[in-house]
Amino acid sequence: MDATTRASEERRIRERIASWAKALRAKDLDGLLAHYARDFVSFDLAPPLRHGGEEVRRSLAEWFPTWDGPIGYELGELTVVAGDEVAFAHGLHRLHGKKTYGTTEDVWFRATIGFRKTGGEWLVVHEHTSVPFYMDGSYRAAVDLAP
Amino acid sequence: MDATTRASEERRIRERIASWAKALRAKDLDGLLAHYARDFVSFDLAPPLRHGGEEVRRSLAEWFPTWDGPIGYELGELTVVAGDEVAFAHGLHRLHGKKTYGTTEDVWFRATIGFRKTGGEWLVVHEHTSVPFYMDGSYRAAVDLAP
Repeated sequence: MDATTRASEERRIRERIASWAKALRAKDLDGLLAHYARDFVSFDLAPPLRHGGEEVRRSLAEWFPTWDGPIGYELGELTVVAGDEVAFAHGLHRLHGKKTYGTTEDVWFRATIGFRKTGGEWLVVHEHTSVPFYMDGSYRAAVDLAP
Repeated sequence: MDATTRASEERRIRERIASWAKALRAKDLDGLLAHYARDFVSFDLAPPLRHGGEEVRRSLAEWFPTWDGPIGYELGELTVVAGDEVAFAHGLHRLHGKKTYGTTEDVWFRATIGFRKTGGEWLVVHEHTSVPFYMDGSYRAAVDLAP
């Protein structure tokens, strides 16, 4: 794979992620899920250890209405590693905004997204989002970190 | 990329991960780090959000002697997605054993590993390990889950 093709595939992946984030901000469930392969596997911020596609759809459908207005979502330090058929991206994401029950949220977390090119299109087949946890015996999730 | 080549690359990735786990069990720091590219980026169980290669080396060098004997390490549900130059793997990992200060550890976590082929060899360029956290207001890391 030459450098020009690689740069072009990396740009396409960045565009997919930007489009994914736009759908998330707008709480557009179908628009968001159009970026995923049917059988994708998600390691989410919330338990259990692993979610399948149907569970992700259900929990997003419940989660979107808990936000008052659009969801704030930014991506930082995005690195994309693309081959001809397989690619992945990792970066630090920030989720913030007002919840319908009055609180505000603002959390940075890590995200790794795995893609496979299917029918000429890059689809998400795996997603891993997390925060680390404090190793001081408290087992507290580190939701208070920023890059 | 034809199915035979893909299967062969996936097998090579599985072998690399098995070799990586063997080095970890044996607390073989140099053997473990030989699997990584120099500039790899790690999203670790412990803060901060992101670690570079040098920090990982330092923290492993401190962490290995806290285990009494070899480290117990198993991999479950390993999925490998391999292209010609880029690949990633995701699965559930179990870390267990006795610590020198008398306690025992036994935790399942999620791991996503990103590879790039460099000089004909698959090297880890990115690693993301985590547990989810409870969304019950406690922000407690879910170190008590099993697949």
